Amino acid sequence: MKVDQLSQVRQEIRSGRWQRPTAGLTPGRVQANLVVLPKRLAYDFLLFCVRNPKPCPLIEVTDPGSPVPRKTAPGADLRTDVPRYRIYRHGEWVKEVSDIRPYWTEDAVAFLLGCSFTFESILLEQNIPVRHIEEEKNVPMYRTAIPCEPAGAFQGNLVVSMRPLASRDVIRSIEITSRYPQVHGAPVHVGDPQEIGINDLSRPDYGDAVTVRPGETPVFWACGVTPQAVAAASRPEWMITHAPGHMMITDMKQEDLVGING
Amino acid sequence: MKVDQLSQVRQEIRSGRWQRPTAGLTPGRVQANLVVLPKRLAYDFLLFCVRNPKPCPLIEVTDPGSPVPRKTAPGADLRTDVPRYRIYRHGEWVKEVSDIRPYWTEDAVAFLLGCSFTFESILLEQNIPVRHIEEEKNVPMYRTAIPCEPAGAFQGNLVVSMRPLASRDVIRSIEITSRYPQVHGAPVHVGDPQEIGINDLSRPDYGDAVTVRPGETPVFWACGVTPQAVAAASRPEWMITHAPGHMMITDMKQEDLVGING
Repeated sequence: MKVDQLSQVRQEIRSGRWQRPTAGLTPGRVQANLVVLPKRLAYDFLLFCVRNPKPCPLIEVTDPGSPVPRKTAPGADLRTDVPRYRIYRHGEWVKEVSDIRPYWTEDAVAFLLGCSFTFESILLEQNIPVRHIEEEKNVPMYRTAIPCEPAGAFQGNLVVSMRPLASRDVIRSIEITSRYPQVHGAPVHVGDPQEIGINDLSRPDYGDAVTVRPGETPVFWACGVTPQAVAAASRPEWMITHAPGHMMITDMKQEDLVGING
Repeated sequence: MKVDQLSQVRQEIRSGRWQRPTAGLTPGRVQANLVVLPKRLAYDFLLFCVRNPKPCPLIEVTDPGSPVPRKTAPGADLRTDVPRYRIYRHGEWVKEVSDIRPYWTEDAVAFLLGCSFTFESILLEQNIPVRHIEEEKNVPMYRTAIPCEPAGAFQGNLVVSMRPLASRDVIRSIEITSRYPQVHGAPVHVGDPQEIGINDLSRPDYGDAVTVRPGETPVFWACGVTPQAVAAASRPEWMITHAPGHMMITDMKQEDLVGING
């Protein structure tokens, strides 16, 4: 089955027939991380995102109780249109489901945050190879010693993703990604991992290790795992997120991201 | 008296000796609009800003009760370091003061929003003349027919400022300001005022009319009056803002704005 039409893909996901990762689905559409929290925590979390735009680039915030992302996917329902969700209680992951209608509340606020799938597809279009895609692995992610700006209940250190690049691609990748602040923007660090508190590139905290070839420089981008990790650490009564790799596909096209925040 | 040192200017303002507009003070430092609201309205207002980044570019949001903008002016006190403030009750302006310590509350949240003084000084540095500065007037501002994205209690139409430019400067001004999303970014409209609901350029809703010469194109930018007007229209129990033109001068330099959100 060829599923390249947005409405068709969304219907497959909504019906529960597609419960696999979304990488490569509907090329060119912006995919997003999902975090759902009760309204009483929404101010602190929103402020955390505003204060930490690199790990937490806000794509959209829904009105309390409404599962409709009016701006980026007005025909969608955030309770059914993500392939897999994770339910957390007091910060502990308790369940993975494909439909969160039974868990949705009248005070639920959904946050859609930019995701690196989008900037990776832009890098590939510009002929910059992405190692973990070449090696068919998950991107390596690391906890750093860089503290995020805290906001109310939410605090913690930045998580980064790493892509090793040849020197000529380091500069180009910075130029390109700096134009896309809504999907993590420019890197946060280039070069020596120890400078940001990473001791061993071959032992990532999340995802898989990838080959770093002689002469390549590791380039580190702020990672969307940060807000989920920070939110879970505050042990909220309940929280719902997408399952890793199972993103919300919005109607928005990659090219709409340029200048969106300007 | 030559006051070009930030600490000296801040002391002058703090002591109440400087109660005049801040245009031209401490060249190169980012100046900001101020809106202070009670915590219970802060979520809706923060979300309004996030949903409407062009009129409401967030520079900083303080922790509830703290008058210190930790990120952009860690040594400052927002209760004394703005030359003139306006106190509003239920949306009505009741008083103008130079010290808001008597009005500050434990649940006060201060929002610093980007201000067009900064992008005007960047335009001037690039030899793009700014008409209202040439004519020693206040910038002309207009209510438009463009609705902002509402958020909870806050809704209303966009207010824009207008600068007439020669054709060669129109493109350059868009290129330049689009690099500064934190101070309103790229224009929202170029050309026919009626397209955005403005019937008569010679009758601005705020500020002064300026000369539009033959062959010039009016260029419209989102304006920081928008959030104040929208906040007042929701008639909050209390609200404090800066008095027009009497801005908060931050420690941040203009050049720090490039890439701040990326």
